[in-house]
Amino acid sequence: MLRVVHLGLGEIGKGTIEVLLAQRSALKLVGVVDVNPALAGRNLRDIMKGRARNIPYLKVAASLHDVLRHTKADVATMTTGSRTADVRDTVEELIAAGIHVVSTCEELSFPQLRAAKIAAALDRQARRAGVAVLGTGVNPGFAMDAFALACTAPCREVRGIHILRSLDARHRREQLQKKVGAGMTVAAVNALIRKHAIGHVGLGESIAMIAAGLGWKLRTICERFEPVVAAESVSSEFFDVQPGQVCGLAMTAVGFVARKPKITLHLTMALGADTYDEVRIDGDPPLVVRTTTGFPGDSSTVGILVNCARLMPTLEPGVRTMLDVLRLRSLGV
Amino acid sequence: MLRVVHLGLGEIGKGTIEVLLAQRSALKLVGVVDVNPALAGRNLRDIMKGRARNIPYLKVAASLHDVLRHTKADVATMTTGSRTADVRDTVEELIAAGIHVVSTCEELSFPQLRAAKIAAALDRQARRAGVAVLGTGVNPGFAMDAFALACTAPCREVRGIHILRSLDARHRREQLQKKVGAGMTVAAVNALIRKHAIGHVGLGESIAMIAAGLGWKLRTICERFEPVVAAESVSSEFFDVQPGQVCGLAMTAVGFVARKPKITLHLTMALGADTYDEVRIDGDPPLVVRTTTGFPGDSSTVGILVNCARLMPTLEPGVRTMLDVLRLRSLGV
Repeated sequence: MLRVVHLGLGEIGKGTIEVLLAQRSALKLVGVVDVNPALAGRNLRDIMKGRARNIPYLKVAASLHDVLRHTKADVATMTTGSRTADVRDTVEELIAAGIHVVSTCEELSFPQLRAAKIAAALDRQARRAGVAVLGTGVNPGFAMDAFALACTAPCREVRGIHILRSLDARHRREQLQKKVGAGMTVAAVNALIRKHAIGHVGLGESIAMIAAGLGWKLRTICERFEPVVAAESVSSEFFDVQPGQVCGLAMTAVGFVARKPKITLHLTMALGADTYDEVRIDGDPPLVVRTTTGFPGDSSTVGILVNCARLMPTLEPGVRTMLDVLRLRSLGV
Repeated sequence: MLRVVHLGLGEIGKGTIEVLLAQRSALKLVGVVDVNPALAGRNLRDIMKGRARNIPYLKVAASLHDVLRHTKADVATMTTGSRTADVRDTVEELIAAGIHVVSTCEELSFPQLRAAKIAAALDRQARRAGVAVLGTGVNPGFAMDAFALACTAPCREVRGIHILRSLDARHRREQLQKKVGAGMTVAAVNALIRKHAIGHVGLGESIAMIAAGLGWKLRTICERFEPVVAAESVSSEFFDVQPGQVCGLAMTAVGFVARKPKITLHLTMALGADTYDEVRIDGDPPLVVRTTTGFPGDSSTVGILVNCARLMPTLEPGVRTMLDVLRLRSLGV
């Protein structure tokens, strides 16, 4: 039985709590933290009403410190920030308390890319404390990196890898629909793209993870985000998009090894888009793997997070990545 | 640089040597063993002529003992027997010499199923010697077990798993075409099926691995093999099959948990059959993952074998399975 403390009560956080409670034969939720004053101090039963059965009586703590004062935990699940720098203090506090950390923080899925110094510091602390720290989720963390790498296992050589993910944002949470520009004008979205203020975080992390996994020395990563313009009107619970307005984003990221574009990621998140995941491996043998269902966004992130939580005590101490969890891939010539 | 000794010079063995030699920046082939008197003593260059460049001068040894007398190795790749009992002595000799073992022996992919005592003995020896022993390959070892389990990673719950693998045996090696009854009469194949003398070895291992991976207690495994009868004439390099003759086998294996059929494997190997792999997960979320290329048989086995060889020193000592290599999966409620 693993004792779990959970941090973050946004939509993904509430989904995580649902799954943690459903797996109570293996996991015991012993604490919940959210810094939001509208949540702190409230009873978890109120917040999760209708979403789970037999919700334990737990008061949402305003800080991790409040929980750790009187509670011991083995693993922390974190669904808070997207940037390593933003989650650093909390991760350090958890490490110091001897608690494994698994987080949906996008940058933490491969923190060596954008926060190498913080990653090195966390790694030293985690090794010393004998705990593992892992960033994961469906994307980054699985669909466009670790899963694609597992698909290369049969290959004696990989020359290039091309990953496509497309999802119909209509059925996703409002925050995600907003994040992809639904209902905005093309000019407004283009302005946000130029300011790097819109779009998915994590394509660079996925490329860096793939390159590291295949033993490739990455020279550079290029990203290009473009609005997807609605040809017909398309609606969701939250947005009514008229023809000519933006219904989502098409994002491409390319990883160059030497001067060659070896890793290409295409991610489309738009209202009304097809939903699928596809991995195309230019290798020996060449392979095409496709999920006709797609790996559904939020629910897959929650599933992967909790499935990883159960693995955490078996990982080597330190800052780990999904390369340590799905270990087999082509290492090439 | 890992020093590799290879055992077995059948078709899969020769393919393995090709890949080992192609990866010489990471692997060094230091010895080759085959007990076949037609091969022992011959120069590897003769045997591999036209299949690889810069083949090292190595005399094929008639026994492992001959190699180990004057050569040190880190990892052994084995493509010899299909039964754990048949490879046991060799594996023990390798363990005693402190050499990690990765083998295509089908039963060894999950030796707890049919050779639990031998598996336990090998595990003790391997732990004591600080080496890992792993059975792998495309099937069993990947397509119908470890890969399918990796596909469950996003699932908060798995209720059932259905795996289909179909391959056109026309382009496979003669031995495999023979193994599936190509060109025989229905009566002859049915007689062999009744004697368990024909068909793929490993469906039971795959089911046992999946059950162990998902934390399910397997009650029983049922297998049913049937001849696939050619409707039209179909030919390969080795066989001309007339209408009404057998062109291959359709094999179904079902794993029961309590009284429920929770794991179903369908494997079709026949001349002219479609080639694909498909994993259908009845879970939350439900998922369908399909390789339109299939994971090609022999070349995938060789690729997985050598990719695993490079991982061996990082595995925990003992008898390992692919569950230790692709570690993430749904652990359910």
